[in-house]
Amino acid sequence: MSARDRLLGIDLGGSKILAGVVTPAGKILSRAKTATPFSKGPDALLAALAATASEALTQAGVGRERLAAVGMGSPGPLDPERGVILRTPNIAVEKLPVGPWLARELGAPVLLDNDVHMAVYGESLAGAARGKRRVIGLWIGTGVGGCVLWDGRVVHGVNRNAGEIGHMVLDARRAKPGKPRGTLEWEASKTAIARHIRKGVRRGGKSQLEKQVSGRGRLHSSDLAQAFAAGDRLTVEAVERSARYVGIAVASLFDALAPELFVLGGGVCAALGRTFLTLVRQSAEEYAFTTELGRVQIALSRLGDDAGLLGAALAARDGKPSGAAGRKRAARGRPGP
Amino acid sequence: MSARDRLLGIDLGGSKILAGVVTPAGKILSRAKTATPFSKGPDALLAALAATASEALTQAGVGRERLAAVGMGSPGPLDPERGVILRTPNIAVEKLPVGPWLARELGAPVLLDNDVHMAVYGESLAGAARGKRRVIGLWIGTGVGGCVLWDGRVVHGVNRNAGEIGHMVLDARRAKPGKPRGTLEWEASKTAIARHIRKGVRRGGKSQLEKQVSGRGRLHSSDLAQAFAAGDRLTVEAVERSARYVGIAVASLFDALAPELFVLGGGVCAALGRTFLTLVRQSAEEYAFTTELGRVQIALSRLGDDAGLLGAALAARDGKPSGAAGRKRAARGRPGP
Repeated sequence: MSARDRLLGIDLGGSKILAGVVTPAGKILSRAKTATPFSKGPDALLAALAATASEALTQAGVGRERLAAVGMGSPGPLDPERGVILRTPNIAVEKLPVGPWLARELGAPVLLDNDVHMAVYGESLAGAARGKRRVIGLWIGTGVGGCVLWDGRVVHGVNRNAGEIGHMVLDARRAKPGKPRGTLEWEASKTAIARHIRKGVRRGGKSQLEKQVSGRGRLHSSDLAQAFAAGDRLTVEAVERSARYVGIAVASLFDALAPELFVLGGGVCAALGRTFLTLVRQSAEEYAFTTELGRVQIALSRLGDDAGLLGAALAARDGKPSGAAGRKRAARGRPGP
Repeated sequence: MSARDRLLGIDLGGSKILAGVVTPAGKILSRAKTATPFSKGPDALLAALAATASEALTQAGVGRERLAAVGMGSPGPLDPERGVILRTPNIAVEKLPVGPWLARELGAPVLLDNDVHMAVYGESLAGAARGKRRVIGLWIGTGVGGCVLWDGRVVHGVNRNAGEIGHMVLDARRAKPGKPRGTLEWEASKTAIARHIRKGVRRGGKSQLEKQVSGRGRLHSSDLAQAFAAGDRLTVEAVERSARYVGIAVASLFDALAPELFVLGGGVCAALGRTFLTLVRQSAEEYAFTTELGRVQIALSRLGDDAGLLGAALAARDGKPSGAAGRKRAARGRPGP
């Protein structure tokens, strides 16, 4: 019997599943990718996860018997102790015990945590936040996710789902209980950017993204970056608006916690890069209250698409993001509630 | 030479200075109180602090030679390491090295920290948050102050002034850089409540607080409580509005950090008590995102006016809220920058 000397990281997103075999030292040996069957229910999702994991193992020439642990990042809310996806806005599953299921399928303990938690954990070990102990991550994509890393550990909090920075209310006058309006996500996500361009077009404005933001279209971050670079007016306005809101959220969190570093990631940040960073920085510096003795530091994710799967693999190695109970349960394949 | 077996706690507020002699076990032996000479400059302020401290010592029959340490809470921003008040909106001083000055005056090391930090630290040791390790305090008075206590320690952050929850932006559409409009403090403080009643009166509404909220008046929390209890319509509206905003801030901080407990204190909370707590709870529960695995817990301060001076004395005993460097510097009476 060979040693269990390999990790598997899985990053479940609303549009794609990424999986990779990773060494305990953090070297990625393979990468597999599948489209997420987001509307096809739990069985299709589990099958796609297993297939992507298998492909990553095959590519790396690694058998299941060598897997020491599996880490998986997923949109939430989750029950990380029991490895259960409670619900998720973009994938049609509910109370899905994906951790125990994958543990049986792959014959190794599975650690489940929020996708952005995994990505920020990865950035803290091998990316933009290396060496930093107090870090807040904001991931701007289709939605807005977040993670608070305090003294090197992911903060889960009493609800086991802390870090939901996208749900912070920034427009209390428009906000209503249980509705997304007025939250950071509502104002700053790619979905919000598309909505603002669409509104501009409806009011008679012109935009090269008219098709992509229409009811049947889909706005890819790369198109967004192109239109922004071309100076498309509605796009520039919508992106500046998003960055202002992200900067205000950063300033508010700086006022409350003053962490060493904020890390920005996700599709929008990856596509717009330093331009977006500069806009966010400007807004954050303008709104932060006390900066005499320490300023707001913001950096872009360095690991890009690898952040989630690498962070997940290393989190599984370290057993940090979720409790030991969850790992044991997962290892035994006990189903979630 | 007798043992240095007594602590002194000082709570500098915008309207009053409180001081008390405290045993290392946390028993308050005396309480002195003076009006804050908030508009008379640094010399008058220092003289008033020294006089209040002297009175507390005299009342307790304790000589300066018995003082082991002094803790002082003050509105900020501060440089806690150097014992310097950097600036404060309600008291006319700037870059005032109050810590080193008091250390020379009282012959004991002085620990300076934010007033709400001190109060929440007190609540965590002897009040509403006893036994809790992850606590966020919101103090609603003339302004709105805050404190994040994480793993039992006050979070100071890289700017040394974390916990400024009152400056979180809740109405980004109205907020402008460097202006208070749109912040939690702007929407929820006693000043905000008075402003809303005043606006209502100007629009032709009636309120029994008409005089107190007029340009020359001053709204005391006790008057506010009376008018609220009497069902004064404009007062009820303004208080409900304040509580809604406090609840939204609590929900946002719960989404980000999910601490074990939120503690509400300050003049408004003390005067309105459980009624205010109930309104804040309702709003927080409505706006919090993930509560399946752990709900928002909110409690009222239990120490009332004692929280600040008791917390300051115990913080000086524990040397926790600020770094050791500051205590040494203060002990030597070295002036701040």
